[in-house]
Amino acid sequence: VIVVLSGGVGAARLLRALRRVHDPAEVTAIVNVGDDLELHGLTICPDLDTITYTLAGLNNEELGWGLRGESWRVMDELAALGGAAWFRLGDRDLATHLFRTQRLREGATKAQVTAELAEHHGVTERLVPVTNDPLATRFGTDEGELSFQEYFVARHHDVVVRSLSLRGASTARPAPGVLESIATARRIVIAPSNPLISIEPILAVPGVREAVIARRGDVVAVSPIIAGAALKGPADRLLHELGHEASCVGVARCYQELAGTLVIDQRDERRAPEVRDCGLDVRVTTTIMADPDDARRLAQEVLA
Amino acid sequence: VIVVLSGGVGAARLLRALRRVHDPAEVTAIVNVGDDLELHGLTICPDLDTITYTLAGLNNEELGWGLRGESWRVMDELAALGGAAWFRLGDRDLATHLFRTQRLREGATKAQVTAELAEHHGVTERLVPVTNDPLATRFGTDEGELSFQEYFVARHHDVVVRSLSLRGASTARPAPGVLESIATARRIVIAPSNPLISIEPILAVPGVREAVIARRGDVVAVSPIIAGAALKGPADRLLHELGHEASCVGVARCYQELAGTLVIDQRDERRAPEVRDCGLDVRVTTTIMADPDDARRLAQEVLA
Repeated sequence: VIVVLSGGVGAARLLRALRRVHDPAEVTAIVNVGDDLELHGLTICPDLDTITYTLAGLNNEELGWGLRGESWRVMDELAALGGAAWFRLGDRDLATHLFRTQRLREGATKAQVTAELAEHHGVTERLVPVTNDPLATRFGTDEGELSFQEYFVARHHDVVVRSLSLRGASTARPAPGVLESIATARRIVIAPSNPLISIEPILAVPGVREAVIARRGDVVAVSPIIAGAALKGPADRLLHELGHEASCVGVARCYQELAGTLVIDQRDERRAPEVRDCGLDVRVTTTIMADPDDARRLAQEVLA
Repeated sequence: VIVVLSGGVGAARLLRALRRVHDPAEVTAIVNVGDDLELHGLTICPDLDTITYTLAGLNNEELGWGLRGESWRVMDELAALGGAAWFRLGDRDLATHLFRTQRLREGATKAQVTAELAEHHGVTERLVPVTNDPLATRFGTDEGELSFQEYFVARHHDVVVRSLSLRGASTARPAPGVLESIATARRIVIAPSNPLISIEPILAVPGVREAVIARRGDVVAVSPIIAGAALKGPADRLLHELGHEASCVGVARCYQELAGTLVIDQRDERRAPEVRDCGLDVRVTTTIMADPDDARRLAQEVLA
């Protein structure tokens, strides 16, 4: 089994790429829940949903989130009511959140609901939230503390972040199977997700970081930073604001104790020696997954 | 000010009729919340919404509930997911529930949210839930206790009811203004709603029954039973199952201590003496509100 520590979009694309070279039934994604939110009484899990929708072939490529062919009747009406419409939820997407929330109210765990949704959508990879317990990434800013989606969506990540914290991390327990799958995986992949707000919340659940460190030789990370910039989202900016170098070398330093190998983009090839100086092996390839061949090549490098 | 103790559809129609003879800004509806429910994490208030939508001219006449021109994208998708789709919530209607639930989470009361929704829809009547506190009508049956909507919607009220109970009634507090408006109203109208499951939950909130009894001479009830049958819903059946006569006389006995006058349909004219024997004055008119003239006539009788 291949374990993939996963944020949202970048991880979803890597998981899709892995299908080209590996049986998806033998892939387990351990997914960040630090950006999950409660809104309108609904429990929303953006990273889990992004992965499920992407692997089901239902993701909206233009928007970069949500479902393709989506409609917005509920949101349009909610906006007309003067409701909280800043976090756009499409009509079909809302069904996911209604389903999840009702099942949670009935006593199901987030992991169980995730499995039910994956099965419904024909996703054969095993998708597991890192924890069934509450976990929330918080952004310290000069305007006070913001929730993940306040920072990310409402403020379009256009505010300087002074610190990050994870509410609930000290008491969260790994979801069933998380530690076991890390301990027994043939390979553990850290997806090209934001190290600070996608991967760190996974590692912060007690026991997970230690489990990954114990497997360091089999851990391969993919740098989400290419030529100093994030493909999507504020990873570069956040790294810089929080005192890291916004580069594959900065990523290498973040993952120094966790990963034996870092996959970097060919545009960063000249920085390979610095990554090696951090104590990581380096693999150089095209990491953007712009076409099927690139995706296959990256997947092969990751599993090599 | 005219106060109307209100269930859902029948009360909404009476409130609409009252507009023909009275300034709606001088009408306060005190509305049942015993059939409110939590589903998918959303707080749903069927009677409040039926009244708001009807007075806004947005109600779906064919369905008898919900909004006209409604679409069902969320529900269709939820059903496909295997979710709890037995309680049909249209897309636009869902926006109401998302709005309410979010506002409640932000600390607003049910009464505040009701006022916000009414204002948005241009409803000038004052709509007040009888209480901001939890209150739930429960149905004792041979299959165990059912919630209101389990009985009404999931089971299509096709199960014998042995008893009714009201969870939360002993500790619920009247919403701000409820007791005051009853104490000072020029007239108090008991709408043609189900006496047992629409009006009784209003009266059961501590203080309300006593406040109505104190105004008995100014209280006019409209019988929801015409020629032994309810226009809509299971009122006749429930009255019978719970040991009442399913007739305007049975209704008179329910309201004996509360109302000075009962308005009955002309088809029940022959039973007027029996209603008088219960100690109520009787007014006889057409109570069905089938056309604007009938509606005006009923409204005039109620305010006479």
